[in-house]
Amino acid sequence: MKGTVLYRPGDIRFEDRDDPRIVEPTDAVLRLSATCVCGSDLWPYRGLQPIDGPTPMGHEYCGIVEEVGSAVKSIKPGQFVVGSFATSDNTCPHCQYGYQSSCTQREFMLRAQAPFLRVPQADGTLVPTAGGVPSNDLIPSLLAASDVLGTGWFAADAANVRPGGTVVVVGDGAVGLLGVLSAKQMGAGRIIAMSRHENRQKLAREFGATDIVTERGDEGIARIKDLTNGIGADSVLECVGTQESMKQAIHSTRPGGYVSYVGVPHGVELDGQQLFFTHVHLHGGPAPVRRFLPKLIDLIQNGTINPGKVFDLTLPLDQVAEGYRAMDERRAIKALLQP
Amino acid sequence: MKGTVLYRPGDIRFEDRDDPRIVEPTDAVLRLSATCVCGSDLWPYRGLQPIDGPTPMGHEYCGIVEEVGSAVKSIKPGQFVVGSFATSDNTCPHCQYGYQSSCTQREFMLRAQAPFLRVPQADGTLVPTAGGVPSNDLIPSLLAASDVLGTGWFAADAANVRPGGTVVVVGDGAVGLLGVLSAKQMGAGRIIAMSRHENRQKLAREFGATDIVTERGDEGIARIKDLTNGIGADSVLECVGTQESMKQAIHSTRPGGYVSYVGVPHGVELDGQQLFFTHVHLHGGPAPVRRFLPKLIDLIQNGTINPGKVFDLTLPLDQVAEGYRAMDERRAIKALLQP
Repeated sequence: MKGTVLYRPGDIRFEDRDDPRIVEPTDAVLRLSATCVCGSDLWPYRGLQPIDGPTPMGHEYCGIVEEVGSAVKSIKPGQFVVGSFATSDNTCPHCQYGYQSSCTQREFMLRAQAPFLRVPQADGTLVPTAGGVPSNDLIPSLLAASDVLGTGWFAADAANVRPGGTVVVVGDGAVGLLGVLSAKQMGAGRIIAMSRHENRQKLAREFGATDIVTERGDEGIARIKDLTNGIGADSVLECVGTQESMKQAIHSTRPGGYVSYVGVPHGVELDGQQLFFTHVHLHGGPAPVRRFLPKLIDLIQNGTINPGKVFDLTLPLDQVAEGYRAMDERRAIKALLQP
Repeated sequence: MKGTVLYRPGDIRFEDRDDPRIVEPTDAVLRLSATCVCGSDLWPYRGLQPIDGPTPMGHEYCGIVEEVGSAVKSIKPGQFVVGSFATSDNTCPHCQYGYQSSCTQREFMLRAQAPFLRVPQADGTLVPTAGGVPSNDLIPSLLAASDVLGTGWFAADAANVRPGGTVVVVGDGAVGLLGVLSAKQMGAGRIIAMSRHENRQKLAREFGATDIVTERGDEGIARIKDLTNGIGADSVLECVGTQESMKQAIHSTRPGGYVSYVGVPHGVELDGQQLFFTHVHLHGGPAPVRRFLPKLIDLIQNGTINPGKVFDLTLPLDQVAEGYRAMDERRAIKALLQP
């Protein structure tokens, strides 16, 4: 088969690779129905995160089980499944505590921008949909559940979003937009999306944002304070991962409020004493998507949410390089790839 | 009257000062029954925190109301009261949210190492004891409630201590020891105190510690992992405020677990990406002691807890300089001063 490899910043190739096969008895191999490009793929694509030679890419996926290893018990060939970007056995103490993305067996997925994919820890990592293979119109949303929806949901959960609460979302990428959707599902009373791009503002409003703030940095913080009677927000979702976005998130939060951060921080340093006097709760990390997958799949299949709307560009998989370019240039929010 | 002033590192003087008087109509003036030296007083005493000229010292206090301003409604002369190191009106949005130490009217108390003390925002800051002036044997515990007990209690609360949970306390000063007591009151199943001083270990055990770990740094972290089947603790209370203690706390915590930090951080920098992958919850700040005071006073008055045991040195107030020396040299855990 062919698969996606990043050779160096800006150099994405779709080229011959070995077909995935069962290596461990706990593995499955999937025929992917869809995959996509993640905002986090842009860090190495832009040269902002070093890579160690040619690197296979992709960690978001859903599709049909082709084959399973001899130790796989619950996952069967023919099932349609969604998995997380982090593998998990779903039985270790960290998994049982709800932090499957810190599973003792964790591997971060790679190689998913391809037609076939080997998934380790298949029983613990994959969740089958109900009622067999879903209709095509649900595929984008189910694919979103694999990472960006699961991560946006975790952002809202980790920021303690409560019915009636005031929520700020920093970042208008797919994760931020789905953070808005998640906060809405959790009953937030007011959802302030920080965005300066018209198409993203529109989608944020569609997902439940009640206010849009276009200012950034200190001006953005001042605007949030204005909108909250000088108090700050109850819950702030930091969905970018830079020093500026983290600072903006922390200082938009009320004392005793909650900040979540779900994008891998790049160049973020927190001054302990400054953080201390803000009085915020801080929680984040690689989203334990597996914890939320059964619920998210259910919400998608019963038509409650349509997170697949974040895909505003669909390409054949062999045009993956154009998907990266479009997202890098912000021509697309998120590119879906069809094998 | 005379009061305590820090002139420069190591130079504590007990010298003539103006008598406190009502300045704002919301003030009270107290005749102190006891005051004390705080671990945090040692930062400037040791020259690790700059001071801007001669600085009046002391922020822990309890005593009898002498006089109140014209706008004070609930606090009356003759009452015995305990107050927090941070003043609060107890009505602003931050107070209502439980973060009185971020009150919009907050002032950090100073000048409490003296026989008389002006307390701003008397109605919001002070809590009277039940049944009039308490017996002398309760004074040390009520004084402890003013800061070190309230801060240790907040540390346990912010670290989400739960019945049956595994708790680690980093720091064996008065706050850490009372963090142990607080965790015990909250039903922790296992309380591991990190201490290498025999008298403090003994008091930690008396307060409820089930295990003592003497190792520090990476060895301390490894020991905690050993004691928790490689998982890490559910709740870790960081009661020191240094880079090493913060690192030790964060890395002793299980993924998804809770770290609280309640000592003003000195020289603490957190790397965003490292923190991200630990998956911990982080919460702290100046303890909102006022939130807990009514409950703590009740637990003391009904004999459930005896936090006053942290005072292992009692001195007349005019020997305050010796109190600082004894704590600096770790000859005393905490020095009580009698006006």
